[in-house]
Amino acid sequence: MYQLYYSPSTASLAVHWLLIELSVPFELVLTDTATGAQKHPDYLKLNPSGVVPTLIVDGAPVCEVAAILMLLAERHAEAGFAPPSGAAERAAYLQWMVYLANTVMPAFRAWFYPHEWAGEAGTEAVTATSRARIEAIWDRIDAHLGDQDGPYLLGARLSAADLLATMLMRWSRNMPRPATVWPNIARYLSRMRAMPSLREVHVREGLTDWIDG
Amino acid sequence: MYQLYYSPSTASLAVHWLLIELSVPFELVLTDTATGAQKHPDYLKLNPSGVVPTLIVDGAPVCEVAAILMLLAERHAEAGFAPPSGAAERAAYLQWMVYLANTVMPAFRAWFYPHEWAGEAGTEAVTATSRARIEAIWDRIDAHLGDQDGPYLLGARLSAADLLATMLMRWSRNMPRPATVWPNIARYLSRMRAMPSLREVHVREGLTDWIDG
Repeated sequence: MYQLYYSPSTASLAVHWLLIELSVPFELVLTDTATGAQKHPDYLKLNPSGVVPTLIVDGAPVCEVAAILMLLAERHAEAGFAPPSGAAERAAYLQWMVYLANTVMPAFRAWFYPHEWAGEAGTEAVTATSRARIEAIWDRIDAHLGDQDGPYLLGARLSAADLLATMLMRWSRNMPRPATVWPNIARYLSRMRAMPSLREVHVREGLTDWIDG
Repeated sequence: MYQLYYSPSTASLAVHWLLIELSVPFELVLTDTATGAQKHPDYLKLNPSGVVPTLIVDGAPVCEVAAILMLLAERHAEAGFAPPSGAAERAAYLQWMVYLANTVMPAFRAWFYPHEWAGEAGTEAVTATSRARIEAIWDRIDAHLGDQDGPYLLGARLSAADLLATMLMRWSRNMPRPATVWPNIARYLSRMRAMPSLREVHVREGLTDWIDG
């Protein structure tokens, strides 16, 4: 039995989605970021970064959404959410997981919390920088999807990287140019939004916007 | 035969080090970041982010240092640089690789290129923020190493995460408080610096500082 520390509409959504998709038993533990619960001393013992998600696996906490997705995908390998070691798509899978975690997520962190890098005085500059970075990321992913044989980041194979990417694309929904402005991404998201498990995670987290496009 | 696009003393060092440690055949291709070679149009076709390293694997480019390390470690599994799927240390391995890639590396990026987030006007603020983040990271890793049974990030088992961590600790060598100020990290680095392959990669990249402490 997994336990997922989550907060609706945050970085825990991709893990919640994958748990539903894998049909494995899990419990949700609300860690409401709206009230700062992710900074509570008890939670920091599980997750020293003070962010959601944390997944309890065999009694021990695992942090970092990309790591949790990779771990779940390989623990339930039969579901096919990770190309196995040695598969042709393995390098691309690892590369996309790291890129989404270390380039796309920090750009969104700066967009949502622009004061964190340079204080209130730097908010306007950081907001502009993060917006430009996020739009350049969509340029790159849109071009990649256009070049691929197959509809997914890895081509023909759906993987955990698509769940992480879709979650991050969703985060752009209230930006001046949301990811859906890019045509190949729009087509990609139409396909991802057709997954019943994505609709289900929206229902379970009480989210009504975006899922219907 | 692997080909590594590298520049001395940069993020390619961990990959260069692992290639030496694995005793596999590889070729180096100098991509000198001092002259901006990583932004050349030909290189951008291999690495759209315009950074080193890129590793050519079976004729195709792989980007993102953490992804390259994970890929090499599992392609040469007999060397033991990655706990296999299902091993007790697997979750910690994935978590540390992602944390080093998405938290530690961006903090250093901001330290070395503070104008990138908020322009010249924000340089002082970003420098202060990145320094505080890096020092908080050393607090956390120092505490973790103190709590471990065994000398490495995963405890008794040396892994690719230690190569990435050591490279990043080296990056702090000219900071006001380098990582070696933290006692458990200093002990850890003494052990890592005793690896002949780390000395060898310094020699091959023409680096003379830091390795002797």
